[in-house]
Amino acid sequence: MKLSNYFLPVLKETPADAEIVSHKYMLRAGMISQSSSGIYSWLPLGLKVLKKIENIVREEQDAAGVNEILMPTIQPADIWKESGRYDDYGKEMLRINDRQGREMLYGPTNEEQVTDIFRRAVKSYKELPSHLYHIQWKFRDELRPRFGVMRGREFLMKDAYSFDLDMDSSRTSYNKFFVCYLKTFERLGLKAIPMAADTGPIGGDMSHEFVIISETGESDIYYDKRILELMNVDKNLDYSSDLSEIVVSYQNLYAAADDKYSKDEFSKEVPKEFQSNTKGIEVGHIFNFSSKYSEPMKANVLNSNGKTVPVHMGSYGIGISRLVGAIIESSHDDNGIIWPDAVTPFAIGLINLKIKDPEAVSMCEQIYQTLNKAGIETLYDDKDDSPGAKFSRMDLIGLPKQIIFGKNSVIDKTIEIKDRKTGQTEIINISETISKINNN
Amino acid sequence: MKLSNYFLPVLKETPADAEIVSHKYMLRAGMISQSSSGIYSWLPLGLKVLKKIENIVREEQDAAGVNEILMPTIQPADIWKESGRYDDYGKEMLRINDRQGREMLYGPTNEEQVTDIFRRAVKSYKELPSHLYHIQWKFRDELRPRFGVMRGREFLMKDAYSFDLDMDSSRTSYNKFFVCYLKTFERLGLKAIPMAADTGPIGGDMSHEFVIISETGESDIYYDKRILELMNVDKNLDYSSDLSEIVVSYQNLYAAADDKYSKDEFSKEVPKEFQSNTKGIEVGHIFNFSSKYSEPMKANVLNSNGKTVPVHMGSYGIGISRLVGAIIESSHDDNGIIWPDAVTPFAIGLINLKIKDPEAVSMCEQIYQTLNKAGIETLYDDKDDSPGAKFSRMDLIGLPKQIIFGKNSVIDKTIEIKDRKTGQTEIINISETISKINNN
Repeated sequence: MKLSNYFLPVLKETPADAEIVSHKYMLRAGMISQSSSGIYSWLPLGLKVLKKIENIVREEQDAAGVNEILMPTIQPADIWKESGRYDDYGKEMLRINDRQGREMLYGPTNEEQVTDIFRRAVKSYKELPSHLYHIQWKFRDELRPRFGVMRGREFLMKDAYSFDLDMDSSRTSYNKFFVCYLKTFERLGLKAIPMAADTGPIGGDMSHEFVIISETGESDIYYDKRILELMNVDKNLDYSSDLSEIVVSYQNLYAAADDKYSKDEFSKEVPKEFQSNTKGIEVGHIFNFSSKYSEPMKANVLNSNGKTVPVHMGSYGIGISRLVGAIIESSHDDNGIIWPDAVTPFAIGLINLKIKDPEAVSMCEQIYQTLNKAGIETLYDDKDDSPGAKFSRMDLIGLPKQIIFGKNSVIDKTIEIKDRKTGQTEIINISETISKINNN
Repeated sequence: MKLSNYFLPVLKETPADAEIVSHKYMLRAGMISQSSSGIYSWLPLGLKVLKKIENIVREEQDAAGVNEILMPTIQPADIWKESGRYDDYGKEMLRINDRQGREMLYGPTNEEQVTDIFRRAVKSYKELPSHLYHIQWKFRDELRPRFGVMRGREFLMKDAYSFDLDMDSSRTSYNKFFVCYLKTFERLGLKAIPMAADTGPIGGDMSHEFVIISETGESDIYYDKRILELMNVDKNLDYSSDLSEIVVSYQNLYAAADDKYSKDEFSKEVPKEFQSNTKGIEVGHIFNFSSKYSEPMKANVLNSNGKTVPVHMGSYGIGISRLVGAIIESSHDDNGIIWPDAVTPFAIGLINLKIKDPEAVSMCEQIYQTLNKAGIETLYDDKDDSPGAKFSRMDLIGLPKQIIFGKNSVIDKTIEIKDRKTGQTEIINISETISKINNN
């Protein structure tokens, strides 16, 4: 992509109302544009990151054999009355009357909607287990939206739901999503810690929040440091194998956020040298709620004895738009964002400092074409700006590698490669560009 | 994908309230599930087609150099008051009050929102032309939603917008989208005719609806048959070249829907033998509205003389969810859907009729793996149903080719390949599967 044809409205000033670094940088780097309080338009650079995250999440759901569907944003109130949540859900639910006066709402979550789909379609235990997910915008009318996309009103989530005949099978489903989440966050370049979470009146141990460590997080987290050393999940994992061993290896090490934290347990279970207490950002939540929705909504199947029984359900969420902010919170410096390779909008930023020299332009064009042909996503800064403006813009948007075509490049046939994270630079021959980048 | 792990709730009965064939087949084939009047959940088979269409539309927008953004579904009323449309827009606009009492709405279209993004970001003619698109759900509160996804309330559209300094440049943008649309519909396997459409008070000739011929269409269309014979657009078209010749070749041949049709002009301009009058479905609309929004909303730039001028704008829509229905309307028979190759959810349906024979299961599994490795998307019917149920289900969902593994397959090492459209069958050796499919 050439910058001259790219919609990238970078801001020089930091917007006054942005409190945290991800919000500041997303506005300054032209990733988002505020539409109204807590609601944003995603501009090309931001949308590219959002889609990369979305695709990784999708690929890992697909690999786990979950079926993708897409539920609408606007739901009828009726199904929420069936579940009993219509009155319980507070002002965060955006309630709407349509032109016929029917009560509707903008889905803050989708348990009722997916249960309705399931009960119409599935009648027999032979069709179980059934696992469905979707990636869709939700709306929660937060009283005080803040922190940009971290706590917005309209936000993108992946929601999955499992339907099983009994608790045993339901635990197998739970474990599948647990491990799938470990894999997903690893691919995103994040260390997300599964933390025991509240199960409320449902009880049991099947509720975990996935939390990434960040100074600006909203939750206090307490964990055994050894949880960070646990082995990565095999990329070619067979989801039909027994996954309980992996899950138990995490459950055996203490990790809890403030709502579940107990000082006594923490000091008893974790040797002093492994105790860690920091802030974290919740990026995922998995939860088994048994027959909480299937019973009132009559999502029943016939079991092998011909008896009608309500299905056991679980839900599994990942905050996709929130992750964009969370990744920036955990990866930036004073000059801007530093994208992990897995989600960076472009792999390379190619800066032409000699835009008025036709030979430089022609040589840069050739480097750009060579990178494109090699399948290396490149943002080519072909704009007529000062070197200072070019450098600071490229640092701000945080592409992992920069190629600088400067005053000696035409004569020496060399370019400078800069690593955004370390700041280290290296002069190389132009002919070595591809091999150098592929070896890094 | 194995059918035993695929969420495909096929219906035996035709739903009573479905009036047109696409609506019937989409419900029966388990592509969609109704949530409320005019609002649908997309189930895996339907979503796969929706995404294939979306991706083709996206690739062609990208190829034309249009920048992808994503605007939110919920917009503030303020910008609609600026443009003057808040009061004009009738009951089709879903109006909402948030918890703070602020007036919001579910975007029925996005001219105001995109103009707001543009005016904040662009101040100089040097940044023009600027072309932005997004693919997002819209809501129009139709009084009588019907025809399934063809006239739903929540629907998916691609909307693009052009911003130019003057009318000449605006026409160049218009021509770019005109040609991009020809290319897009061609790739979708559709013959969409660009028809002169109403420009209202704005005047001029820059408004075209793209209409596909269909008996069940809502519009009467009148056109010169020779328009169907015009050359296809070059796949590697250079969008920076002069495209007016292509556009003029279409404009020179009469094509108009009822609102623009004139009996006199039609009979004068089109020789009798080339006159055609049928029904059509509108699937796209391009329209130049000059400074209709930029003036009231003060979307101005400085021109090269340092003078402040409002930009010229155009909008370019494609109904993505509507296209799913429109394609079925134009491609089906009494047994079900017949998907064009470009958008089919799977290329092959593999039917195992000997599911209780372990050798047959093992051989079918091998065929399935071979197809997968060759990158041929396959739906493998591994379910224990009667042959009749399997055949009618596979015909209903309309995959272009079926492979039937039957009673002689184990002994003879042969399979039957059936073409869904022609119904022609051929017996081939299993070893020839890939070469046979790739040559078709």
